[in-house]
Amino acid sequence: MVDADTFLYEQLAAELGGAIERGALRPGDRLPSVRRLAEERQVSVATVLQAYLRLENTGLIEVRPKSGHFVRRRTELTAEPRAPRQCATPARVSVSDAVARILEALRDPAVVPLGSAYVDPSMLPVTALNRMLAQLAREASTAGARYDAAPGLLTLRRQLARRAVDWGVPLREDEFVTTIGATEGLSLALRAVARAGDVIAVESPTYFGVLQAIEGLGMRALEIPASPRTGMDLDALDEALRAGGVKAIMVQPNVSNPLGGVMPDDAKERLIKLARRHDLPVIEDDVYGELVFDGSRPRPLRAFDDDGRVLLVGSVSKTLAPGYRVGWIAGGRLHDAVVRLKYSQSLACPTLTQMAVAEFLGSGGYDRHLRRLRSHLAGQVERYRDAVIEFFPEGTRVSAPRGGFVLWIEMPGGVDSLVMLDRAVARGVVIAPGPVFSARNRFGNFVRISCGMPWSPKAEAAVKLVGELACELSGKRSRGLRAA
Amino acid sequence: MVDADTFLYEQLAAELGGAIERGALRPGDRLPSVRRLAEERQVSVATVLQAYLRLENTGLIEVRPKSGHFVRRRTELTAEPRAPRQCATPARVSVSDAVARILEALRDPAVVPLGSAYVDPSMLPVTALNRMLAQLAREASTAGARYDAAPGLLTLRRQLARRAVDWGVPLREDEFVTTIGATEGLSLALRAVARAGDVIAVESPTYFGVLQAIEGLGMRALEIPASPRTGMDLDALDEALRAGGVKAIMVQPNVSNPLGGVMPDDAKERLIKLARRHDLPVIEDDVYGELVFDGSRPRPLRAFDDDGRVLLVGSVSKTLAPGYRVGWIAGGRLHDAVVRLKYSQSLACPTLTQMAVAEFLGSGGYDRHLRRLRSHLAGQVERYRDAVIEFFPEGTRVSAPRGGFVLWIEMPGGVDSLVMLDRAVARGVVIAPGPVFSARNRFGNFVRISCGMPWSPKAEAAVKLVGELACELSGKRSRGLRAA
Repeated sequence: MVDADTFLYEQLAAELGGAIERGALRPGDRLPSVRRLAEERQVSVATVLQAYLRLENTGLIEVRPKSGHFVRRRTELTAEPRAPRQCATPARVSVSDAVARILEALRDPAVVPLGSAYVDPSMLPVTALNRMLAQLAREASTAGARYDAAPGLLTLRRQLARRAVDWGVPLREDEFVTTIGATEGLSLALRAVARAGDVIAVESPTYFGVLQAIEGLGMRALEIPASPRTGMDLDALDEALRAGGVKAIMVQPNVSNPLGGVMPDDAKERLIKLARRHDLPVIEDDVYGELVFDGSRPRPLRAFDDDGRVLLVGSVSKTLAPGYRVGWIAGGRLHDAVVRLKYSQSLACPTLTQMAVAEFLGSGGYDRHLRRLRSHLAGQVERYRDAVIEFFPEGTRVSAPRGGFVLWIEMPGGVDSLVMLDRAVARGVVIAPGPVFSARNRFGNFVRISCGMPWSPKAEAAVKLVGELACELSGKRSRGLRAA
Repeated sequence: MVDADTFLYEQLAAELGGAIERGALRPGDRLPSVRRLAEERQVSVATVLQAYLRLENTGLIEVRPKSGHFVRRRTELTAEPRAPRQCATPARVSVSDAVARILEALRDPAVVPLGSAYVDPSMLPVTALNRMLAQLAREASTAGARYDAAPGLLTLRRQLARRAVDWGVPLREDEFVTTIGATEGLSLALRAVARAGDVIAVESPTYFGVLQAIEGLGMRALEIPASPRTGMDLDALDEALRAGGVKAIMVQPNVSNPLGGVMPDDAKERLIKLARRHDLPVIEDDVYGELVFDGSRPRPLRAFDDDGRVLLVGSVSKTLAPGYRVGWIAGGRLHDAVVRLKYSQSLACPTLTQMAVAEFLGSGGYDRHLRRLRSHLAGQVERYRDAVIEFFPEGTRVSAPRGGFVLWIEMPGGVDSLVMLDRAVARGVVIAPGPVFSARNRFGNFVRISCGMPWSPKAEAAVKLVGELACELSGKRSRGLRAA
């Protein structure tokens, strides 16, 4: 559906994209020349160019120099990785050793960081943000030097409350606590809802940072299978909750990491009902909520929660500046407990970096940037995905994420991705091996790669290297498919 | 003892200060005129002026306009607050409610913040530091946007290793982890050495942030009496350790908060021996180590530790810029555990603020600043102390801190400092009531006030107000003494 406010080029791109999806335009077909289409549709050449650029960015068409625009050959391999079986018992977590290996390897600036879910700074408005910081540092001299103890900088919390309207969640400024990235938000949330020995229901696979936090706090994880399309399996969750013993639910409904799924609204409603029935708190990690490729900005779980049981965690680390470490938590009815834990965990966030982010969020440039970023990431993910299909061994399955910038790859059974990590690091590439996404070290033949770095010969060589290692370890040959 | 490197004015100030302490110069005595002393000593007028300024700042002499420099009338009330009795059993901590009241009240910029141990930004080189940050933000555009996961920024860790030489502790750059202020360092240290239910031996009284962290982690505190001169009572500690059950020792040997004592070197040696005998880790909070008034910079406990059992925590929050939230921990043999806990607690510190502090530490301006700051704080503490003696009820005892900028005040028995807090807040002044410095809510008739704000009519009015409240609550009159 196209509404009146949509830009002309967006309407045109949507229309052509639809034609490709329906098969009206087929792989290899040449699109009309820019000039001809502009005449036909009575729009400017610039509008057509922008529409074609959008389609190119989302991976649907490609430019062949001196020939024009063509519908890309979409690989046929659409098989997605399989979800694990349900697991009845919780587990103590021990992912720290492997995660430490990844993070240590990533400290070398010379490596290709396929193992880190971060967006390359070249795609972020770092210069504009830094300029604001520089200006504030010169002007707000003493303000920047003062402690600004939890709940944190008021102007930032105001901007968050304003943005929450767009998320579909009515949150007031006094419901937020600012944090050191989402990582601190998750840590505070876990500490607010549970203690050592308690069981947290998590998606399987799930982000290793969550497992690390659970491990560090001496808690246990109960893995609930998750689908690469729709996230946590709620039938499995229902069963687990009935069996008893779960203390809290930890979930990424909007673009799960590493799967890339988005939980539909009716599933979100059902999850809240389940939590209410068992009177459990829910920790929601929404760091990827702004990065759904179609721009739909799905509502957080918190929007379906009317009794404050959801602790909503977010940050600007995936969208603006990871190195600023600006995140937040809206703790719901546990707000006061979160504030107190923040006092003793780090007391206050740095003042000036919060001020700069608040100014950027208020500037209006953030939404424009998000639109561009989503479009770029969609195209990049498609490029990386094509390369995985080309270079990885036959039988490989790869996710088709609805947002974000990571791919979850299931390789043939013989591959041990921890061995793969060692070999890749030795050759200058860091990956995130499957077992760090599970409390039970499942997913031994899975790997997550990040598509946050712009596609380039260097990126291609890195994906190729990892694919070759997978071939080597599985004894299988690559499919060698390549978009024409 | 005066060595050859000491500045001339410092030698002169030390000599005159000694004469005052010995009673060779008595309260009310007029000092030689600047010109005469310069001639007598064959030094410049500027040198004498600087020496007099130093003595004025440390509260020993005062200027009477058009009359010259005079030895100040030192009040006779030198009684220091008494240490509590030894307590045989550990306690669950519950200071959070009262601490939250203090921190919430401090968020109002209109209050006089006597309850917060922070140095007023006017006394810190904030402008210079901010200028460095602004410059870095403009130049190091993408560097500032990248994650810099634990152990944290290399250039900052290098500067810390360089400074550690001056502390008398040979620490390498790879032995540090940067943190969000010392608060995060203490939190990580506690998590590295103990878990919920475990007992931590702490000084009594001790900094409420430590007690909050212990409370938040579900640990218990065993209070060991501390002296306002020499810190933790090691006989009492020895006894407690023999009784068993202590998991770790948490201590502030260099300027304890709130007492202001410094543990002598032989006591530090003994403390390390005790810890070694019982194979216990020691958490050392060294945030005030640079702020000993006589500039001696006592060695941290860590200097006496040869098997890495001391986790040394520090920050620039008391000396440079609280709002930058730059701290560190050298975790000794628990370094790796600290790094992993940092991953899951906040992953990384903001990059640009670390860069700015590293540059400032490397600039050489830091040592000059510290010399000035120590001298200012010494004078300020003396002014506040005089006012306490004047305005507080008879029978009040007040600490004579060797460094830092807080006073620990014991009031007559009838005063309830929590009631005092409420009444003071209602009249625009925040104090730190005694019970927040104890796991057992001892020190009901004690209060800590900060002297971090330059002495002014506003500061005087605030101390006077608190003194009047103490008179009101104790039913006693103030001594009304005042330095002539």
